[in-house]
Amino acid sequence: MARTLTLFIGLIAFIATPGIPAEILIGFDEAGSEQQRALETRFDKYLDAKELDAWLRQLSAEPHHAGSVAGKNVAEAIAGMFTSWGFDTEIEEYSVLLPTPKLRRLELVAPTRFTASLNEVSLSDDPSTLVRENLLPPYNAFSIDGNVEGELVFINYGRPEDHELLQRYGIDLTGKIAIARYGKTWRGIKPKLAAENGAIATIIYSDPADDGYVKGDVYPAGPFKHESAVQRGSVMDMPIYPGDVLTPGVGATMSAKRLALSDVTTITTIPVLPISYKDALPLLAAMGGAVVPPEWSGGLPITYHLGPGPAKVQLEVKFNWDQVPIYNVIARLKGSLYPEEWVIRGNHHDGWNHGAADPLSGLVALLAEAQAVAELAKSGNPPARTIIYAAWDAEEPGLIGSTEWSEHHAEQLKIHAVAYLNTDGNSRGFVRIGGSHSLEKFFNQIMADVKDPQTGVPLSTRLRASITIDGSDEAKKAIADKDFIRLYPLGSGSDYSPFLHHLGIASANLGFSGEGKGGSYHTLYDTYEHYTSWRDPELKYGIALAQVAGRATLRLANASILPFDFINLVTNIASYIEELQSLADEMREETTKINDLIKDGSYKIALDPSKSLGPPILKEAVPFFNFAPLKNSLSKLQKAADLLHETSNDGGPPPQKLIEINNLLYTSERRLIRDAGLPGRPWYKHHIYAPGYYTGYGVKTIPGVRESIEIRQFDKVAEQIDIAAGVLDALTDQLTAINEAWNNDD
Amino acid sequence: MARTLTLFIGLIAFIATPGIPAEILIGFDEAGSEQQRALETRFDKYLDAKELDAWLRQLSAEPHHAGSVAGKNVAEAIAGMFTSWGFDTEIEEYSVLLPTPKLRRLELVAPTRFTASLNEVSLSDDPSTLVRENLLPPYNAFSIDGNVEGELVFINYGRPEDHELLQRYGIDLTGKIAIARYGKTWRGIKPKLAAENGAIATIIYSDPADDGYVKGDVYPAGPFKHESAVQRGSVMDMPIYPGDVLTPGVGATMSAKRLALSDVTTITTIPVLPISYKDALPLLAAMGGAVVPPEWSGGLPITYHLGPGPAKVQLEVKFNWDQVPIYNVIARLKGSLYPEEWVIRGNHHDGWNHGAADPLSGLVALLAEAQAVAELAKSGNPPARTIIYAAWDAEEPGLIGSTEWSEHHAEQLKIHAVAYLNTDGNSRGFVRIGGSHSLEKFFNQIMADVKDPQTGVPLSTRLRASITIDGSDEAKKAIADKDFIRLYPLGSGSDYSPFLHHLGIASANLGFSGEGKGGSYHTLYDTYEHYTSWRDPELKYGIALAQVAGRATLRLANASILPFDFINLVTNIASYIEELQSLADEMREETTKINDLIKDGSYKIALDPSKSLGPPILKEAVPFFNFAPLKNSLSKLQKAADLLHETSNDGGPPPQKLIEINNLLYTSERRLIRDAGLPGRPWYKHHIYAPGYYTGYGVKTIPGVRESIEIRQFDKVAEQIDIAAGVLDALTDQLTAINEAWNNDD
Repeated sequence: MARTLTLFIGLIAFIATPGIPAEILIGFDEAGSEQQRALETRFDKYLDAKELDAWLRQLSAEPHHAGSVAGKNVAEAIAGMFTSWGFDTEIEEYSVLLPTPKLRRLELVAPTRFTASLNEVSLSDDPSTLVRENLLPPYNAFSIDGNVEGELVFINYGRPEDHELLQRYGIDLTGKIAIARYGKTWRGIKPKLAAENGAIATIIYSDPADDGYVKGDVYPAGPFKHESAVQRGSVMDMPIYPGDVLTPGVGATMSAKRLALSDVTTITTIPVLPISYKDALPLLAAMGGAVVPPEWSGGLPITYHLGPGPAKVQLEVKFNWDQVPIYNVIARLKGSLYPEEWVIRGNHHDGWNHGAADPLSGLVALLAEAQAVAELAKSGNPPARTIIYAAWDAEEPGLIGSTEWSEHHAEQLKIHAVAYLNTDGNSRGFVRIGGSHSLEKFFNQIMADVKDPQTGVPLSTRLRASITIDGSDEAKKAIADKDFIRLYPLGSGSDYSPFLHHLGIASANLGFSGEGKGGSYHTLYDTYEHYTSWRDPELKYGIALAQVAGRATLRLANASILPFDFINLVTNIASYIEELQSLADEMREETTKINDLIKDGSYKIALDPSKSLGPPILKEAVPFFNFAPLKNSLSKLQKAADLLHETSNDGGPPPQKLIEINNLLYTSERRLIRDAGLPGRPWYKHHIYAPGYYTGYGVKTIPGVRESIEIRQFDKVAEQIDIAAGVLDALTDQLTAINEAWNNDD
Repeated sequence: MARTLTLFIGLIAFIATPGIPAEILIGFDEAGSEQQRALETRFDKYLDAKELDAWLRQLSAEPHHAGSVAGKNVAEAIAGMFTSWGFDTEIEEYSVLLPTPKLRRLELVAPTRFTASLNEVSLSDDPSTLVRENLLPPYNAFSIDGNVEGELVFINYGRPEDHELLQRYGIDLTGKIAIARYGKTWRGIKPKLAAENGAIATIIYSDPADDGYVKGDVYPAGPFKHESAVQRGSVMDMPIYPGDVLTPGVGATMSAKRLALSDVTTITTIPVLPISYKDALPLLAAMGGAVVPPEWSGGLPITYHLGPGPAKVQLEVKFNWDQVPIYNVIARLKGSLYPEEWVIRGNHHDGWNHGAADPLSGLVALLAEAQAVAELAKSGNPPARTIIYAAWDAEEPGLIGSTEWSEHHAEQLKIHAVAYLNTDGNSRGFVRIGGSHSLEKFFNQIMADVKDPQTGVPLSTRLRASITIDGSDEAKKAIADKDFIRLYPLGSGSDYSPFLHHLGIASANLGFSGEGKGGSYHTLYDTYEHYTSWRDPELKYGIALAQVAGRATLRLANASILPFDFINLVTNIASYIEELQSLADEMREETTKINDLIKDGSYKIALDPSKSLGPPILKEAVPFFNFAPLKNSLSKLQKAADLLHETSNDGGPPPQKLIEINNLLYTSERRLIRDAGLPGRPWYKHHIYAPGYYTGYGVKTIPGVRESIEIRQFDKVAEQIDIAAGVLDALTDQLTAINEAWNNDD
């Protein structure tokens, strides 16, 4: 008796959070669920932090950007590992346009003279920074060549609202050189908008208030940005299309048809150069004109001025516009039951430099997962579905490796791809998962099943506690539902974009963040030493990431019914529609209020007549929009989702329908894309999630409608509402078809 | 006919805002109103900006702090002007304790060495700064003597919430030297709270983020704080009692009974020294310990750390603890009808240095008003009531001149004082009036009658426009009532305090601010050159201030019925009671929420285990309080106020009751004081307005109740509610008596 009791308690402890009986896993029956959790416990045992640490040290030993010899070596090393573990591995090569810097020059020529160093110094405290062979100097990829001279204008973060405020100060950017600080919006937006406003070049620097000594001790005394550090990064106009600029929509194989360089629309129209805050200081200190508004002031020990001038600079950049080979590593493990259903798991391998945090800290988790999955297979537990591990090349210059592969294999992927799971670096802290909301319930189970390595509580428990205590309003909203932590919707910035936005493959992006800090991003200082000192010592969160992503991969691979659930998708879409209505209402009220205050002269009498800040410019009034089509379609979708939920609760589908139903389940995300794509950017086909045209990485949900409102193309809103309603209807039809198949055992 | 029409239009334009018929002035009948406005038009013609400019230049020529020879000379010069204009003028002298610095030394002794300069440099661009004879070096008056050595701890602004956060970081101030930045709370609170928490000294510096290059260009290129500039200022514990520390409650005449210095409770218990940001930089840069929370970071180009140490400093201060004579200038113009009713108008004359902005920019307006009033009297329009112009000495070290005079003449003032109108410097910008809310309607008429010198619209129109466009929530609340701009309630910080808080004399504080900017406050750089370059070039707002304060003085002096109205007082008190209820509710919810999160372990799992920040400390739960007595008393007051308002609308009082009614009207503010005073500080007798015990200058309305809640003495709240209800009842009785007198022509 006593012995039986012990055994019973042991079983409970094995499958459950203490005190809470473990839920049955979505997509599994009770027995399958226990079996899967047992498998995951074995999976965890194969994960070894010391191994992750060794891989991280090895792969980050030297700079290995796309197109470099070291980059090819890294790809081959990774391929070697996959092969040794038993994966069917290949390196898929594409030939893509990849500019690298040939000449970079920045000089202050008036009122004083100063030549920017444009160089990151090596630090004896960090031996990796002494390894500089093949190091790409600081530059922004896909800046156009140029040699210009002009007065400086400070444009703050270079967002639309910053330009609007500059106009109120009467400052015309035409013929000027814009100096912007990094942050608040994706870097590519800064030169794009500056150029639209007439600037002839853009300098981007990291202000210490955003990313430097104001945030904390600087490297190597602390994790934050060294005064000489410069954030590299792409300024390709990815909100139009990412990937090889010469081959939009098709894989950049040797034989692919290519655009002429002059026809490419995603290269900047003005030269762009990133600099350090040490180099920025003399430029900003030499500026005059109005003092910046309070919220524009940064952390340098000067008074910031808007310009224009008297500071005048010469800026020259020239690039090698070469077509180079890139190397995606693709490793397959064939599914034992459903080999035609592919679960894809990826992380890029190219870095701007040593790339310890970005991307290798995510890649080493992926490698650990792959090794463990292979070990499970060898010991008799192969995945039911095919698993593909991908290590992408050339993510940094513009998601190029993943985009070319997705475009190249688009037709197969549309048929076979169950889901794409992305990581891109990692850190100590809190789990953050973004992705398709049909997987929200699925990921909530995983977050409850994996323990935080520092506190031992489930990841979801720790995340909830942190957000409850000091989360942003947005974060609080994400946990407002007692049952679910919201997945954040995906904009862009990593390799999930071609899968989700272009092909309509359900995707997720996984990682930890919030406690491992610092300013190493895209600098010389993103090294093994920095990572293991400041971001994730002992790689405990590397293990946690492998546990999360590994569970996601294995559950997707082994579930008898694929774990898509549409109730949560409906909940999230409902909140986006509410947001759109609020957005329109708030814009309408704000526009009316400000227009009235302009017209009645309030601005004129309230503003300081001795200052240059003038009233805002009158804006077109915001009409009322008919959101009913969207709400009616959502209503139908909700009914179909509820019905399917009830059906699935009543028991499994007829066995002969399993493949059909699973196929309908994983292709349901395809219904949210339309071949015509979004207005002005047909590459982006998803109509629920997209990166913002004027935010870059920042997401826009129901983007056709949202952006028409935001950029004040009010006459386009009704059409976009109908289009968005149409994709919801298409999904409703798909759910109805699943339901019918489920209930019909013919 | 044409001619008559022209004349009619002319009349309207003369008395009215364009398009709006001028209101009849409160306290006057229609004819009296027109007559008064005509008088004010003549008054305005006597005001001459060039004269204000000349006085400002003359009186700010050299440093003239209380107790200095130059200070006495300034008093005599002012007295000479009043006398020449026909005022009955006297200099009233008191003998007060006034410490001045004998020795000031601050050295960093570890981990590196640095000696603070403690010196403000003269600037060739500003000749006044070359005049340094008698200049008081930077110090905080009423710091105790001391010579200490200790490790530094950064305490941010030194507010209660800052100390609470330090405790969460596990930092004990015992035996340490606190370094605080100026701002957010009155300076005297910083050493007071630091000492309560165990610190052995406090250094206060001006951070460039609050008051320096982050705000704008520094002097002389712009108005903001020069790197060597130091804000002087008193740290006397004025929330206990202001004025001569040796003679609380009585005038500091030669024969007054004095406390022994050792019995004084308003001198700091630890030494205090103010320094510049140039001197602060090496100290802060040498500190270690945890990085400060983000909102604690300032504008110096370093990472701020909490300490303690390794930076260790020696700090030594010694003062001359001398009793010195101070000189109040008191100028009287006897009332032609009601000489026993006194309208008092004051501004101090002592400066920490040259004192151009503080106090002289307000004093020259007062002088212009006095000269104009004297001219009107000479030309046959003497004031109906007695007007007293006062130029106070020793305001800077602790409101000493005004306090001693008020205490000395307390019995007469209680009988004769109609109201006290204060100014204390001025600037370009928007009118800001604080004071007794029985005068709110009165001041709203004045703000509508005076035109803004830059835009030509009424002051109230410009203020409303500005606040509507970008005011704080608090400011928006102040204009939320369509009919009235709220007067802000008076805390402390200038000479109205003894009149209002100690004697219950209805008071107001008048000035312009918001556009003339800078960091000259209490530094060597508060000069004529600074003022006329950056704060009010051509003294246009000096004239506007004289127009506002002059109208207030003349209307109070000439009104047949004194212009007190209690409807607005009730409205404001009602909002304070609502605030108290919200305060209790919010504290209760917040306490419960945080206590729960502490108890359920959320803090423990959410906080970064590698950092020193710990969970908050459990707090006593906030009970529910019975606010009914206060609301019942307010209800009665409201009825009495409404009744009196109706009565006054029905016509004037019986002529034989005029003096009695006016007496009852102006002594109504006396009903809001109680002889016992506030808990722990009997000098403060007003029960609607007081400076905060832990905020210093910051006001606390219904302070007995509010502070009992805020400092969590929950068992005292009920008693304080009864006391506050009692003062409302006393006022109700007074209004009832006025109403009875008005309706009874026996």
